[in-house]
Amino acid sequence: MSAFSSDFKLGILGGGQLGRMLIQAAIDFNIYIKILDADPHAPCKPFAHEFVQGSLMDFETVYAFGKNVNVLTIEIEHVNVEALEKLQSEGVKVYPQPQVIRTIQDKRVQKQFYRQHSIPTSDFVLVDDKDSLAEHHHFLPAFQKLGKSGYDGRGVQRLSSASDLHKAFSEPSVLEKAVDFEKEISVIVARNVSGEISVFPPVELVFHPVHHLVEYLFAPAQISGLILAQANEIAIGVASKLQIVGLLAVEMFVTKTGEVLVNESAPRPHNSGHHTIKANATSQFEQHLRAILDLPLGSTAAKTFAAMVNLLGEDKYNGDAKYDGMEEALAIEGVYVHLYGKKTTKPFRKMGHITIIDNNLEALQTKVQQVKDRVKVIA
Amino acid sequence: MSAFSSDFKLGILGGGQLGRMLIQAAIDFNIYIKILDADPHAPCKPFAHEFVQGSLMDFETVYAFGKNVNVLTIEIEHVNVEALEKLQSEGVKVYPQPQVIRTIQDKRVQKQFYRQHSIPTSDFVLVDDKDSLAEHHHFLPAFQKLGKSGYDGRGVQRLSSASDLHKAFSEPSVLEKAVDFEKEISVIVARNVSGEISVFPPVELVFHPVHHLVEYLFAPAQISGLILAQANEIAIGVASKLQIVGLLAVEMFVTKTGEVLVNESAPRPHNSGHHTIKANATSQFEQHLRAILDLPLGSTAAKTFAAMVNLLGEDKYNGDAKYDGMEEALAIEGVYVHLYGKKTTKPFRKMGHITIIDNNLEALQTKVQQVKDRVKVIA
Repeated sequence: MSAFSSDFKLGILGGGQLGRMLIQAAIDFNIYIKILDADPHAPCKPFAHEFVQGSLMDFETVYAFGKNVNVLTIEIEHVNVEALEKLQSEGVKVYPQPQVIRTIQDKRVQKQFYRQHSIPTSDFVLVDDKDSLAEHHHFLPAFQKLGKSGYDGRGVQRLSSASDLHKAFSEPSVLEKAVDFEKEISVIVARNVSGEISVFPPVELVFHPVHHLVEYLFAPAQISGLILAQANEIAIGVASKLQIVGLLAVEMFVTKTGEVLVNESAPRPHNSGHHTIKANATSQFEQHLRAILDLPLGSTAAKTFAAMVNLLGEDKYNGDAKYDGMEEALAIEGVYVHLYGKKTTKPFRKMGHITIIDNNLEALQTKVQQVKDRVKVIA
Repeated sequence: MSAFSSDFKLGILGGGQLGRMLIQAAIDFNIYIKILDADPHAPCKPFAHEFVQGSLMDFETVYAFGKNVNVLTIEIEHVNVEALEKLQSEGVKVYPQPQVIRTIQDKRVQKQFYRQHSIPTSDFVLVDDKDSLAEHHHFLPAFQKLGKSGYDGRGVQRLSSASDLHKAFSEPSVLEKAVDFEKEISVIVARNVSGEISVFPPVELVFHPVHHLVEYLFAPAQISGLILAQANEIAIGVASKLQIVGLLAVEMFVTKTGEVLVNESAPRPHNSGHHTIKANATSQFEQHLRAILDLPLGSTAAKTFAAMVNLLGEDKYNGDAKYDGMEEALAIEGVYVHLYGKKTTKPFRKMGHITIIDNNLEALQTKVQQVKDRVKVIA
């Protein structure tokens, strides 16, 4: 069935900000959208044609939700894959495919996938608990990442030396050799049902030193043509080998010796692609829709330099969100705000983002600092 | 109350495609939106926080609708102005202001406003009925426009000579001298609560010769610096003299002798500004929100050449809309579709639009023809 048919329905697992921006893009295609989320106040709720409250991890809930949609997609990878497999076997088009989600949602399986397919990635060992991790103390400094249930900085920690072993997670996880990197970049690649592939220009990520959340990003990344070629080849390689349909965000380290190593991937629209709404010919959200609806992919050309600042809840504030300094920020030329409609803030919660565009990179960086200094999410 | 407060409510009179695109922009600001429209299947319905079905022309309906919102705006000017005046007197911020809507919604009053304020416009006479019109047969060729209730080509007709007088409307109307124009252009100007004014680059309109609807437009218009300066001065002049808060689309003729004359204005987002979503730093919809919410206006800079093609229902097709050739059109680089979510099509109904961006004007024009040849709205 054509996506432009009036009977067509798209289901999305997850009703957070990524789903919300997907809906904004889907309005242009007049796509009927059905959302599943456990939170009755999910950011998508006011804009979904149909909203179902329920757990993304529950087999029956996901299965019942997906039975009457034509295409089912995700905005978060922590979903019940068994239900997706059953839906797929019964004719629902599930994009990204259940096997892709299965590979990516467990960071242990994901890392092994890179190794099996000769995709450059940092060295790692799999550990089952604290004791088996202790055997690998010579492997430190490293990052311990929980296989499952880690998300947005939760379930990831740096273990610098044997003296950190007491704080290790005692669950199945992957221990990844710390990479001495120059830059961290992300390439968002799209692959549609017909196998057409397209990459967005790489973005450069700057992380908060403590909270491991992206603090801001610049696009296009300031990297050499050689690094650009490697990054694109790797991102396209991962998407091709996964045979994913939809978006894949491939986060990579550029090492001080000029190597490009995959850190991790996400099979969906990604925080590192929000600037594409304002700065690229096609946004990541429209591109995801084009990919999963088997439409031709759009141009990913960057029209300007762009920066994206996550609006995180200020530390120590809990309660009904207030946005300080917004008028001042919007007075700066090229500043655009995107709020996610979350009623309550808490420390470091992603409440929105601000995109800043400027054709001059230095002016852009100045504006980023102005925006970061002025806008605060408090309660 | 700040627009970013969680208690803030914006009311919009009208739930058509302009309201729908306003909502898409308002999602970024997390604005609570309440819509009034007579059509229970209005394009805005699925995306409004609150949808009220009712007549925009009925005093009680409009008054009751507007009583509990903080700011009230319009996406169509055919609304009950008396109700807006009462709401304004009771503290609701009504933008554009009732007196602006009153001036513009009657084309007779609008034309007199231009004359009173020395705004260049074509010569005209006011006529009350067919008989009084007949007295002005020496004034032909001219356009007869109904004072009220004309919209989108309805209520406007060309009377070439005395032999056309039999088909004249017998209602209060304005008879406007036909202008021998070189181009028809539109300048969208925004004025916010604080009086800040900003203009978008002019666009060039191409009308369907029979149906008087915009068939496509190019932006920025290909005009001389001198014409550009005149057009901007006139558009800013109209907005300043009206003291409008919100968007004002000023349609103008550029005559063969290099004069710029106002044709007519609309106090809201406009069909001639749809390309700004893809092609300008700030879209007309976000700009309207910034203006009426007393936020700083955004940059109107054009990032590329753009064309906009209205997707009209094909002649002779009535019923559930089908979109032919969409996949082929989307395969062309720089082609973006916006459907309005109208279930049924009828001849020449505005069902959506297609924006085409290209840095090369000739390539852009070729793509416009390809899109127009391929995409058809049928039933």
